[in-house]
Amino acid sequence: MQAARLREIGGPSKLRIEDVPEPEAAEGQTVVRVRAAALNHRDAFITQGLYPNIVLPRILGSDCSGEAGGRDIVVDPTIGWGADERVWSPDATILGMPADGTFAQFVAVPNQNIHAKPDHLSVEEAAALPLGGVTAYRAAFVCGGLQAGETVLITGVGGGVQTFALLYAKAIGAHAVVTSARDGKLERAKALGADVAINYATTPDWHKAVRAAVGAVDLAIDSAGGDSFAKALTVVKPGGRVVTYGGTTGDATIKMFPIFWNQLSIFGTSMGSPGDFAAMLDFVSKHRIKPAIDRVYELAEIESAMQRMDDALQFGKIVLRIPQ
Amino acid sequence: MQAARLREIGGPSKLRIEDVPEPEAAEGQTVVRVRAAALNHRDAFITQGLYPNIVLPRILGSDCSGEAGGRDIVVDPTIGWGADERVWSPDATILGMPADGTFAQFVAVPNQNIHAKPDHLSVEEAAALPLGGVTAYRAAFVCGGLQAGETVLITGVGGGVQTFALLYAKAIGAHAVVTSARDGKLERAKALGADVAINYATTPDWHKAVRAAVGAVDLAIDSAGGDSFAKALTVVKPGGRVVTYGGTTGDATIKMFPIFWNQLSIFGTSMGSPGDFAAMLDFVSKHRIKPAIDRVYELAEIESAMQRMDDALQFGKIVLRIPQ
Repeated sequence: MQAARLREIGGPSKLRIEDVPEPEAAEGQTVVRVRAAALNHRDAFITQGLYPNIVLPRILGSDCSGEAGGRDIVVDPTIGWGADERVWSPDATILGMPADGTFAQFVAVPNQNIHAKPDHLSVEEAAALPLGGVTAYRAAFVCGGLQAGETVLITGVGGGVQTFALLYAKAIGAHAVVTSARDGKLERAKALGADVAINYATTPDWHKAVRAAVGAVDLAIDSAGGDSFAKALTVVKPGGRVVTYGGTTGDATIKMFPIFWNQLSIFGTSMGSPGDFAAMLDFVSKHRIKPAIDRVYELAEIESAMQRMDDALQFGKIVLRIPQ
Repeated sequence: MQAARLREIGGPSKLRIEDVPEPEAAEGQTVVRVRAAALNHRDAFITQGLYPNIVLPRILGSDCSGEAGGRDIVVDPTIGWGADERVWSPDATILGMPADGTFAQFVAVPNQNIHAKPDHLSVEEAAALPLGGVTAYRAAFVCGGLQAGETVLITGVGGGVQTFALLYAKAIGAHAVVTSARDGKLERAKALGADVAINYATTPDWHKAVRAAVGAVDLAIDSAGGDSFAKALTVVKPGGRVVTYGGTTGDATIKMFPIFWNQLSIFGTSMGSPGDFAAMLDFVSKHRIKPAIDRVYELAEIESAMQRMDDALQFGKIVLRIPQ
């Protein structure tokens, strides 16, 4: 079968489209025919060696939609979460490292990770859903407790998770404030329902602009860390919540006073449990949410697709069409 | 009546023992005869002008035990918390600023803030309880969710709240790791049941020493902020909790990765709700917890008492005996 395989560390250019043997199902597994896959920053980080426990060569990729047992399906990419809803087991892994992933015509996955594809989604839309969709669901609802009528700040809209968070917030009737360094992404976010959109590159005091626009927010969702996380803490109302699922810009220097005086709750989150994944699928189906898709590439174009993500040019998910 | 009144900003030396008129009960208030009062850092901060909305002259003091309506009582010092258990109302205040406080022979307080003194406590022990006791209760249980068998890290033991947290943890059968810059305080903490005691002044990598001693902890309680808070984040196990109720050493520079990867929850807290206060009294009575009292001073010695707190020499609460 065809697959995009990483042979050595060194960035996306080290991915090779190769002809490799089809996987075989181990005990408790099913081999899925992959129709479409989607990129995550995790994939790029792995090509750069910025992930623990990298084993080479490996087929990367966590997200896919496809077919198994004659059904249209999507795959929950978190393997072995464990019994504790609060946190994954130390043995949990994500599809695509260390196990071979979805950038291939076939992938072997645990039976319980296979779910029916939501009927209202195309193959490409369904492939965009898993990792970003469940991370955003857990961030917004399980950790963040977002409610109708509340206001959520979503920093750095355009990335997959943040764009899902925007779609979810609008689906339940929450108000959404988004930031980005690119006006084009802010326009796209407004088209998806964002109530306030602020360019943090041209408005360095964007946290003051948030307050001027909507007062304080009930919830902030951030994955940038650093200055972004620190500023997010200052715009949350007393008793409010902040959720972080990343730290791409580095360490954050934070003031303690607003945290304890305003009785804030801060939740770190990564991925989601099997329960979160099932709840996310129900939610997406109920609200007929369509993932924002940035572009669809052919599998053979994976290096260009990865480069676009690395350059932070995308709005929503970048999808790979897998040759059938 | 005699009272310790602050006439001008400038530190504890600006407190004067004066003869002032007895307070009168406004609508919904009761005048309490104060038997004993206790110091909080808040009182020292106010003398230094480090608090919002300071009105002078004022009688300071948030904690007391005493007598009202022929009953032995303690006073909940949080006035007007409001209906939301998660956070106090913007109008909430603490006894002792802006309203006259407990460093006096009499104090007027809202009727609903008066509670029966736990039977097993002396007048001095009961005076030590309110603000530190409720802050620690909310930090350890309401926010921190501490359970029997879990391990809690308590940084900077010796302060009132942290010492209550230690007593509470041991009362329910949790394990406690404490830190301090003073060996004398560590010895006192061990005598109260601390399982592991680490001097953070002589062991700058105390967070590594915590891990070496007990592995990771379920909960960390910190009020120092800065480096202390940042290090506390690194010793909490996946899915664990960190509670902060202060930031005396300043801003904290934190790594985002352990927060989101380990799915930590961080809770800021200040004081406690009326429900927390009542629950704290029940808990203290049920477990017959005796507050750790550092020293008892006469009201006239308040400057020396404040100086001891300012020098961080105390272990537990510093109490003032009020002349009758």
